[in-house]
This record gives sequence, structure tokens and C-alpha cells, in this order.
Amino acid sequence: MTGRLIAVEGPDGSGKSTQARLLADRLDAIYTREPGGTPLGERLRDMVLDPDGDHPVDRAEALMIAAARAQHVSEIVRPALDAGRNVVTDRYLESSIAYQGHGRGLGPKEVAAVSNFATGGLVADLVVLIDVDTPMAADRRKENLDRIEQAGDDFHDQVVRAYRSMAAAEPGRWAVIDGIGTVTEVADRVSAAVTERLGSG
Amino acid sequence: MTGRLIAVEGPDGSGKSTQARLLADRLDAIYTREPGGTPLGERLRDMVLDPDGDHPVDRAEALMIAAARAQHVSEIVRPALDAGRNVVTDRYLESSIAYQGHGRGLGPKEVAAVSNFATGGLVADLVVLIDVDTPMAADRRKENLDRIEQAGDDFHDQVVRAYRSMAAAEPGRWAVIDGIGTVTEVADRVSAAVTERLGSG
Repeated sequence: MTGRLIAVEGPDGSGKSTQARLLADRLDAIYTREPGGTPLGERLRDMVLDPDGDHPVDRAEALMIAAARAQHVSEIVRPALDAGRNVVTDRYLESSIAYQGHGRGLGPKEVAAVSNFATGGLVADLVVLIDVDTPMAADRRKENLDRIEQAGDDFHDQVVRAYRSMAAAEPGRWAVIDGIGTVTEVADRVSAAVTERLGSG
Repeated sequence: MTGRLIAVEGPDGSGKSTQARLLADRLDAIYTREPGGTPLGERLRDMVLDPDGDHPVDRAEALMIAAARAQHVSEIVRPALDAGRNVVTDRYLESSIAYQGHGRGLGPKEVAAVSNFATGGLVADLVVLIDVDTPMAADRRKENLDRIEQAGDDFHDQVVRAYRSMAAAEPGRWAVIDGIGTVTEVADRVSAAVTERLGSG
């Protein structure tokens, strides 16, 4: 049986990466992340996020993230799913729609089309949104901000609104998790939602 | 007045890069190349072409080339055109359609859509095809082949056919130049065609 693909999404500072790791542990699933997940993808991630690097323009940023995604899906995600393993990915296509489509203003449909080219049409079975308000997310953000984290509050507000709007439009495929509380409290909520939706965990 | 964008296209080993440089000299135009043309683009070029690198899958290859193109258009090509300079680029969007759309089999329409996202819709005013048959192009190819040059003869045959088919479909925007002859002979043909089409040179 084919495994399930679960994307953990959320704004910077939401605790999403910690939750993705904990969820993968609890499900005994493959943990991976974007942009990155492969040697090529990690190089692209560094090029995109490095505040002292060549500063890709917005369209180049979207395309480099999509390139990393293509490599990730082909080398990691699809083989794992085909082998019957569940996969938890820290960010997937929905990050591109929120960050580049809405945050950078490149258009959600246009960015989704580029991402669908990258994935060959593979969508997440379930998207878990770690939902926090922007000010709290900003508080939690680390001191050495990467190039995308450095974008202003308006950008990050748009990202939050985009996530909530996508979740509202497709409630069957999204689980919105309140991100306020201890790591364990949030992890328990995530596990409960994933079990309810996918019938495992 | 806005400058003109001239793309010089052709299969590997056609002498296209030499002709692009000579044409830029004769037109007193900006010379540039793809993939590359910017520091970020040159890094992406190296990652795509390095036979000892991480070997991007076909979709990642197409997206990395598109990312380099987005940076190139935004930082070099559009500013030069807006300043009234003519630009000669060694490869542009049509290379992606020929190599990734046809050669890699990703689909010409799909690859064109990704490239149009990259360029924001900027198309070349004139595409000069340095036309040679595959066997001769193969003879001319250098010994240290890059990762794309290493693709087999079928791949390169498809590239040649794709170029000819695109040129036949849009004769007003393409000039097909016989690539057989000395460098100067071919350069004279290129100049004559460009002068005739764009009324300068």
C-alpha cells in the first residue's frame, strides 16, 4: 500500500519544524524538509536563504525552491511512498503558495503551476497548519534571521492570512492546529488530528 | 527607445557561442549567455552542467535553468533593453523548449509555461538558429563534455528537430542560418539576416 504524505506548514517561528520531527517520530514515518531534503536541494536552500548571498529575485527564489522540490519528490518522497512508508515533510507546495504566491506577490495560481510542474502532480494527503498569530511568531523568531525571515511584518502577515485562507478553502485536506502551548501540548493536538484524519498514528 | 533582444540558438557544437559573441560585437550590443549571465545564474549553471555534481533530475534541471533565466532577465536583460541597448544572448527560452521540453521529454508547453513565469513574459525579438546536422555538431563537440552534452545522440537529434520545427512555425521571428562554413562565413550570414530582419547591424 502506498504511504501517506503529510506536510507540516506554518509561518516562521510557529514551532512547525519541531512539530514535524515529533510527528514523524510518533508515526514512525520518514522525516524530511523543504527546501532541501537532498544534497542538491540543501545547496539550493542555502542559496535561497543566505542573507549574504547573491539575493535571488522573487521569481528566481520561487523557481529554485521548486527545483529543490522536484529533486526531493523524485529522490526521497515518491520512493518512500511507493515503498509504503508514510512521509512527514516540514514544508511542501503550500509554503510556496503562501510565501512566494502571496508574500512575494507572484500570484498563488502561477506559483502553484510551477510547483505542480516540479512535483509531477503529487499533493499532500494532509496538510497540518501550526497556526499562530504573526506577532507571536515574530517573537519566537531566532536572532540570525535568514533572507526570507528578514522580510517585513506585512510579508509575514500575508503568509499567515494565506495559510488560513487555504485551510478554510479545503477543510478536508487541512488540519488547523492551535500553536499556542508547550511543545508537548501542541504535539498532542497534532497527533490527535492526524489520527482522526488518516486513521493511524 | 527600447533595445532589441536577439537570442542565438543551436545544438551543442554548432558554433553558436562564437557567433553570438561576433554578432554582439558587430551590433555593439550587450553580450550575455544562459544559463548564467549573473553570479547566481553562473552558480546554477555549474550545478546543472557539472558531470560530477549532484545530478539534478530532469524537472529540477528545467527549474534551475528557469531560475537562472529569471535572475538574468531581471538584473541584465530588462535593464539593458530599457536603457535602449540591444542584447545578444547565447541561448534563451527556446533552448529550454528544445532541450528540456523535447530532449528530456518534459513537454514543450509545460516548459514554456515555466520559462514564461521566469521571464515575466519577455520574448526575444529575433531568434537566430545556427543550423547544423547532429553528426557534425557531434564531431565539433569538445572532449570534456558537460552533463547535458553527455546525453546521447537521440537526445541531440530531438534538440535539432525541435529547433527546426519551432523555426518553421514562426518564420517571422526566427532566422535559420546554415552553420556550415568558416566562422567568418557564418558570421556574415548571421549579420545579413539580422540586418534584414531588424534593420540595423
